[in-house]
Amino acid sequence: MSVIYDRVALIGLGLIAGSMAHAIREMGLAREVVGFARSAETRDIARDIGLCDRIADSAAEAVAGADLIVLAVPVGAMGPVAEEIAGHLKPGATVTDVGSVKQAVIDAVGPHIPAGVHFVPGHPLAGTEHSGPRSGFASLFRNRWWLLTPLPDSDPAAVSRLLDLVRAMGAKTDSMEAAHHDLVLAVTSHAPHLIAYTMVGVADHLRRVTDEEVIQYSAAGFRDFTRIAASDPTMWRDVFLHNKEATLDILGRFTEELFMLQRAIRMGDGQQLFDYFTRTRAIRRGIIEAGQDTAAPDFGRVAPAGR
Amino acid sequence: MSVIYDRVALIGLGLIAGSMAHAIREMGLAREVVGFARSAETRDIARDIGLCDRIADSAAEAVAGADLIVLAVPVGAMGPVAEEIAGHLKPGATVTDVGSVKQAVIDAVGPHIPAGVHFVPGHPLAGTEHSGPRSGFASLFRNRWWLLTPLPDSDPAAVSRLLDLVRAMGAKTDSMEAAHHDLVLAVTSHAPHLIAYTMVGVADHLRRVTDEEVIQYSAAGFRDFTRIAASDPTMWRDVFLHNKEATLDILGRFTEELFMLQRAIRMGDGQQLFDYFTRTRAIRRGIIEAGQDTAAPDFGRVAPAGR
Repeated sequence: MSVIYDRVALIGLGLIAGSMAHAIREMGLAREVVGFARSAETRDIARDIGLCDRIADSAAEAVAGADLIVLAVPVGAMGPVAEEIAGHLKPGATVTDVGSVKQAVIDAVGPHIPAGVHFVPGHPLAGTEHSGPRSGFASLFRNRWWLLTPLPDSDPAAVSRLLDLVRAMGAKTDSMEAAHHDLVLAVTSHAPHLIAYTMVGVADHLRRVTDEEVIQYSAAGFRDFTRIAASDPTMWRDVFLHNKEATLDILGRFTEELFMLQRAIRMGDGQQLFDYFTRTRAIRRGIIEAGQDTAAPDFGRVAPAGR
Repeated sequence: MSVIYDRVALIGLGLIAGSMAHAIREMGLAREVVGFARSAETRDIARDIGLCDRIADSAAEAVAGADLIVLAVPVGAMGPVAEEIAGHLKPGATVTDVGSVKQAVIDAVGPHIPAGVHFVPGHPLAGTEHSGPRSGFASLFRNRWWLLTPLPDSDPAAVSRLLDLVRAMGAKTDSMEAAHHDLVLAVTSHAPHLIAYTMVGVADHLRRVTDEEVIQYSAAGFRDFTRIAASDPTMWRDVFLHNKEATLDILGRFTEELFMLQRAIRMGDGQQLFDYFTRTRAIRRGIIEAGQDTAAPDFGRVAPAGR
């Protein structure tokens, strides 16, 4: 695999940036990977585990001479970081991000990008419920989608080079307009995450059922919700605050749909429920066929060792 | 492992009954396993794959001489089945069920149980999104909970014998009152399932986002919902119709909670969101500690082979 960028600067060293570091270094996709995180503790851990070739002591130092800069901080921090590094970017460099919302990032970061520097926003649809500098691994992006939302005036060569990197890390790629991205993600990710958080919250607050029972008996469907609800609180707070319109749109549709089913239950309308459930099964089959999941029963889980 | 029952009759041959057949026969927990399903096609498949020692041509024939009868049909069918077999049950036999709701089953089945026959309702908290006679496997119940809701006058020896069987199949057991069971399951399973169905339905109806995009990008959180929503429509229709009060109770709390978070998003109240998400992370950790899930990232999934 040949070198695609000379020096890659990772700003933020969580799950995504950490995984990029592993993948890029494992496959020799850059000559050097430099990292920076705002927290000194994170920088220490990163140095400790040898996450990058070099850990800088400031964002400005990290981006000096870099030809790819990856903003991997919470969406709410993107603007301030962009402002801080703007004056230190090498002409011809590409700035990208990995934020879960795109329009808000473009609005926050775009104004700080100097002329001659390319800005190609992006979003890898990958993650686990873990966070921090130790959580990344090289195969995170394999067979996952990495969406780019190039700006109308984005330099095609810069976009193409970033696509090469992303594909080299194993991802499938697609480009779309930022607003469309935000709507699709509201449906497939943001609203489901909020719903999962809510269901876990309901279980938490319920006093007539003990927490222990909820936890013990959670193999019954609840367990899947809780994985989603264990996601990083900072990241998700920022996602919801910065994809407000699309999220509220989808949540509104969701509550209308839920009330319809709730009414069917109250009225004992079994046929409506049956028809609805039958229709949703088809979507699940579509997902397996698209290669985005395994058909192995129960996600191919192995039951934990007996106790 | 020694024989616990002489003849076990399985009425209904789906995932649960099929898995019981595999487990009981693999471990020699009964001398003979007899099966019956209402559909001739299911009976043919069961014969074809040698699921039981014998497939009967009627429920009455299946239960003749059996000392354990397992009702493994949709909850709505339990009453009619019980009525059909009542006159053919051997004195001293135990009737149990595997329905996901308990009070409704007790109300439907109880009146048909003759004097001298034991009735010990139960519910294994295990399953996958697959159905039918081919879907069962012997290890389904290992390390999963199997809840019993014995009646106040249930014979302790009959309860104890059933517990022996259930534990021999690898499950952990607990007993509780039927009404309490139904509430706990409304929280941990029934409401989450309805919510998952609803989210998938919203994605399905949305015209501004193509179905293909929803399916393609569903690794982003939506995927977990769709597994739940692929569950058997008949079974779930009956669950909701027969656990109405508890389900509506939980759904009501859920929508109140959701509106609170929705309002926080609309008002830009990041602190409220952050606090809420932080609190829910703790429940996830509780589940891993309770041994009900794996801490391996992403449920220990292996990414499907690239294409």
